[in-house]
Amino acid sequence: MAIVLGPNQYGKAEVRLVTVSRSGPVHHVKDLTVSTSLRGSLESTHLTGDNADVVATDTQKNTVYAFAKESPVGEIEDFALRLGRHFVDSFGHISGARILIDEHGWDRIAVDGKPHDHSFSKAGNEKRTTAVTVDGDRAWVVSGLDDLVLLKSTGSEFHGFPRDKYTTLAETSDRILATAVTARWRYQGSDGNWDIDWPKSHHEVRRIMLETFATKHSLSLQQTLYAMGEAVLEARSEVAEVRLSLPNKHHFLVDLKPFGLSNDNEVFYAADRPYGLIEGTILRDDAEDPGLAWHTLPTF
Amino acid sequence: MAIVLGPNQYGKAEVRLVTVSRSGPVHHVKDLTVSTSLRGSLESTHLTGDNADVVATDTQKNTVYAFAKESPVGEIEDFALRLGRHFVDSFGHISGARILIDEHGWDRIAVDGKPHDHSFSKAGNEKRTTAVTVDGDRAWVVSGLDDLVLLKSTGSEFHGFPRDKYTTLAETSDRILATAVTARWRYQGSDGNWDIDWPKSHHEVRRIMLETFATKHSLSLQQTLYAMGEAVLEARSEVAEVRLSLPNKHHFLVDLKPFGLSNDNEVFYAADRPYGLIEGTILRDDAEDPGLAWHTLPTF
Amino acid sequence: MAIVLGPNQYGKAEVRLVTVSRSGPVHHVKDLTVSTSLRGSLESTHLTGDNADVVATDTQKNTVYAFAKESPVGEIEDFALRLGRHFVDSFGHISGARILIDEHGWDRIAVDGKPHDHSFSKAGNEKRTTAVTVDGDRAWVVSGLDDLVLLKSTGSEFHGFPRDKYTTLAETSDRILATAVTARWRYQGSDGNWDIDWPKSHHEVRRIMLETFATKHSLSLQQTLYAMGEAVLEARSEVAEVRLSLPNKHHFLVDLKPFGLSNDNEVFYAADRPYGLIEGTILRDDAEDPGLAWHTLPTF
Amino acid sequence: MAIVLGPNQYGKAEVRLVTVSRSGPVHHVKDLTVSTSLRGSLESTHLTGDNADVVATDTQKNTVYAFAKESPVGEIEDFALRLGRHFVDSFGHISGARILIDEHGWDRIAVDGKPHDHSFSKAGNEKRTTAVTVDGDRAWVVSGLDDLVLLKSTGSEFHGFPRDKYTTLAETSDRILATAVTARWRYQGSDGNWDIDWPKSHHEVRRIMLETFATKHSLSLQQTLYAMGEAVLEARSEVAEVRLSLPNKHHFLVDLKPFGLSNDNEVFYAADRPYGLIEGTILRDDAEDPGLAWHTLPTF
Repeated sequence: MAIVLGPNQYGKAEVRLVTVSRSGPVHHVKDLTVSTSLRGSLESTHLTGDNADVVATDTQKNTVYAFAKESPVGEIEDFALRLGRHFVDSFGHISGARILIDEHGWDRIAVDGKPHDHSFSKAGNEKRTTAVTVDGDRAWVVSGLDDLVLLKSTGSEFHGFPRDKYTTLAETSDRILATAVTARWRYQGSDGNWDIDWPKSHHEVRRIMLETFATKHSLSLQQTLYAMGEAVLEARSEVAEVRLSLPNKHHFLVDLKPFGLSNDNEVFYAADRPYGLIEGTILRDDAEDPGLAWHTLPTF
Repeated sequence: MAIVLGPNQYGKAEVRLVTVSRSGPVHHVKDLTVSTSLRGSLESTHLTGDNADVVATDTQKNTVYAFAKESPVGEIEDFALRLGRHFVDSFGHISGARILIDEHGWDRIAVDGKPHDHSFSKAGNEKRTTAVTVDGDRAWVVSGLDDLVLLKSTGSEFHGFPRDKYTTLAETSDRILATAVTARWRYQGSDGNWDIDWPKSHHEVRRIMLETFATKHSLSLQQTLYAMGEAVLEARSEVAEVRLSLPNKHHFLVDLKPFGLSNDNEVFYAADRPYGLIEGTILRDDAEDPGLAWHTLPTF
Repeated sequence: MAIVLGPNQYGKAEVRLVTVSRSGPVHHVKDLTVSTSLRGSLESTHLTGDNADVVATDTQKNTVYAFAKESPVGEIEDFALRLGRHFVDSFGHISGARILIDEHGWDRIAVDGKPHDHSFSKAGNEKRTTAVTVDGDRAWVVSGLDDLVLLKSTGSEFHGFPRDKYTTLAETSDRILATAVTARWRYQGSDGNWDIDWPKSHHEVRRIMLETFATKHSLSLQQTLYAMGEAVLEARSEVAEVRLSLPNKHHFLVDLKPFGLSNDNEVFYAADRPYGLIEGTILRDDAEDPGLAWHTLPTF
Repeated sequence: MAIVLGPNQYGKAEVRLVTVSRSGPVHHVKDLTVSTSLRGSLESTHLTGDNADVVATDTQKNTVYAFAKESPVGEIEDFALRLGRHFVDSFGHISGARILIDEHGWDRIAVDGKPHDHSFSKAGNEKRTTAVTVDGDRAWVVSGLDDLVLLKSTGSEFHGFPRDKYTTLAETSDRILATAVTARWRYQGSDGNWDIDWPKSHHEVRRIMLETFATKHSLSLQQTLYAMGEAVLEARSEVAEVRLSLPNKHHFLVDLKPFGLSNDNEVFYAADRPYGLIEGTILRDDAEDPGLAWHTLPTF
């Protein structure tokens, strides 16, 4: 028996990058959180502390900032691919990179009903995300969104579940259904050449999930989850696979009978913990092998 | 010398209340976090543990839920006044109440471009707030908003500040100015009778602050703060006083010279800590005495 | 009617300062979060953007770091007094300062049962705090602690409270009592000259509160609160006043009857929200007027 | 091409369970956060909303509470195994379960120097964790700890790293090294029969990691990470594999030269973001295949 180094990676997490594009009076702001991780032949630093192969995480951070100036950041998928490709191509012992980017949205402030040139308000907590993995000549793009909080006040049932000695939950044909969507979708292809309109794809995937959540009558959150992913795959041929993590943010009907009051699905207690958690994958049965697309990403 | 009980209050914090108004197919959702505090002659429980005067915090919570059913919640200011008045009028030893309500916004999901009847997405982190204080026959209303995050990419300078031996900051005639507005405004009047269109007042105060932030050329965040409050007072006669807490969310220009790159206000590092914190009050010089309006509220 | 500037202050919040005292092989670490606020004649910057009186918050931050080197930081109360005095004495238009410091504890790692010279593990979330206010020649010291989380599994009752139409809570003669102590205590004196052993005073106040919580049979959390403050004032003559904010972190007995099981105070659900919140002041009836000691501090 | 359901799981997250063992005057408190996830043939609910195979997450929660009464909770590994085995054995369509448990520590309050019978203070943020996966007849145990925050004020260097056009970091032979350890270790065996003293194993793994962090002179955080895992594997034969995620919590030396001051590793700025993040696996080269031990766990 010997003790050996297994899979490992290292990098700089949560580099906060804000860029202002100022060509003309109308400014454009891009607000990103970038995390870089490198992989490769890194035995030396682990076993002996010899850092000849360790691209310093400080250098990784500097590279993010410099790249943001050397050419326009553009879409997060493209920026992540550029960064990942750079690290893998520039350093002999670095064979792989994983770049995570969260994009935070800003809206223009309206003044006299017109969007202002250079003043903005934050658009909420929802984030557009990408996770790009580069390995040698190959690359994978998994984009997504976080913290899209949804609620429907009717159109959701839950019944027919098995009852054992520990079951007390009443069946219901009308409940609030609320969740905070974490979605990740893997794009087809891994040869490093994509011809995808990233923002349009993101916009459409998001729109389809929202509309499906709204209009699909729900018999379980699992059914809603599957329908959301299925609708994306039916409409967007560039997407190979969708993974969704949907907390069931319980809204419990308050028992008002002690006060002589009825409660016809009108007054609810929004609970924090515990919460249901429904996680699933919807994919094409002929989807390309995911390779390293999901490696070290939160999986669900 | 004797040891005595000084000011005190107690209550139930963060009651999560969601109501659905279902008269017809178009539902309306209200999502509130309610905190109640009672004040009065509470020596007995403190000194001897005799709870004859202690309206249980569980009862306070129940009252919030029951009131939400007994008549429509309506505007948070009105709901808070009803709750506060109830506690003070119902229990002999309770002479005062403070009710805090945060309202969380929800937007309707658009389906085929039209707002859905009963499906919603969360509107972001910004909260509409109120803090109502009832004391005997009197009452005060302090409304506000939290977490309105703003940024302007130009139109902000900072120079002319004193330089001592510890000063290293460079003067600037062009910087990013970013903040997260916490605003509280006190309404005129304390006799318990208001004839104010609360949502319109909130909407207008918010609009005025946003427009002022956007359009006021800033020589300091203090100047911006004062201008925001002044504009509110000039336009809204129902407001006696505005208090603002504005963190200066620093966006530092990244030094790209080591990489042979210029940085003409294009690439920034958004810092977390430390941050500047500018807090101030703007008021009418003939404003009514605030009484207990601000008592135990975060003051700034 | 005119619109005027009311109370205001500004400064740098959450300066993270870690110092290492390295005189000899045994190192000592001090880990502080320092926030500074200045007050004074600050109309110019608010009204016109003239910053001639605005000590930049960046300068305030620099001063914190420089002072940490110029002489040993020492106790947080002394360091805060030095900083506050410096700002008020150095700048003509600055008449007041408020310095907040949180101290984060570190324990030495034990190696072979002996404390290591220069390796430490964080001591938990509890913080030692101080809030020093300087105004002209006077100064006040309010020290405290945050996030001291306590629980007793018996020795707590709650009954005898009034029952109205909204009351459903059962009386209990045995419950879990749990809280997270936020304590603030004001020291006697305001002339800027204290002869107090700050760490010993902090240690003793903390010990007394802990022992009182543990041993005082509780008929209400209010009674426990008062007893904790009273015990501090009885034992520590340097303390004029104690303020406590005690959330009632509810532990609800789980109803196991549906499963044919009893539950004799054995199995609990620890709830997050809502929670009770009990806040009160215990003071000497001959305590010196607090002056500005509590100004803009969270009051409860 | 068809669209199909891929890997999925669902359950109840963050069930807060506190038990009090009251046999005699000396009480014992156990404070756990339990998350359950079930896997199996769950196509029906996803595709049609037929919930005949869906053990309700509410039932899962009830089961946690009932099991805590039916027999003593004991060690978290054993409790998780009992829960996981129950779900897989009780429901035909459920073939797998993953149970996550975090244990939060409590210390006895000292009164007159002696530990109190039934009063406790929270021991800090560090958590003992386990992740148990049951699949058919097999089971895996991955235990760990979170939020063990460590710092050494000397005994850490970093130099010899490659310098490209984006490198500005200075080499250092003496720096603060600080991290917050997330550790997971997989136990040998998967037949569901362990004869391991879980608390002793946890205690020893933790002790070894602490002592290694303290005493190992560090040329890189990677070297420290490897040394910590290697020391565990050398001493604890029951452990097959160790995974560590170590943020490099940067403490930057403050430049005091502008103030005419030296800074011989005495005054530091503790930064929040960005941070380095070093993640790695140390394992026995003859370790049993991990099977599903790590499936859907955060991997690093």
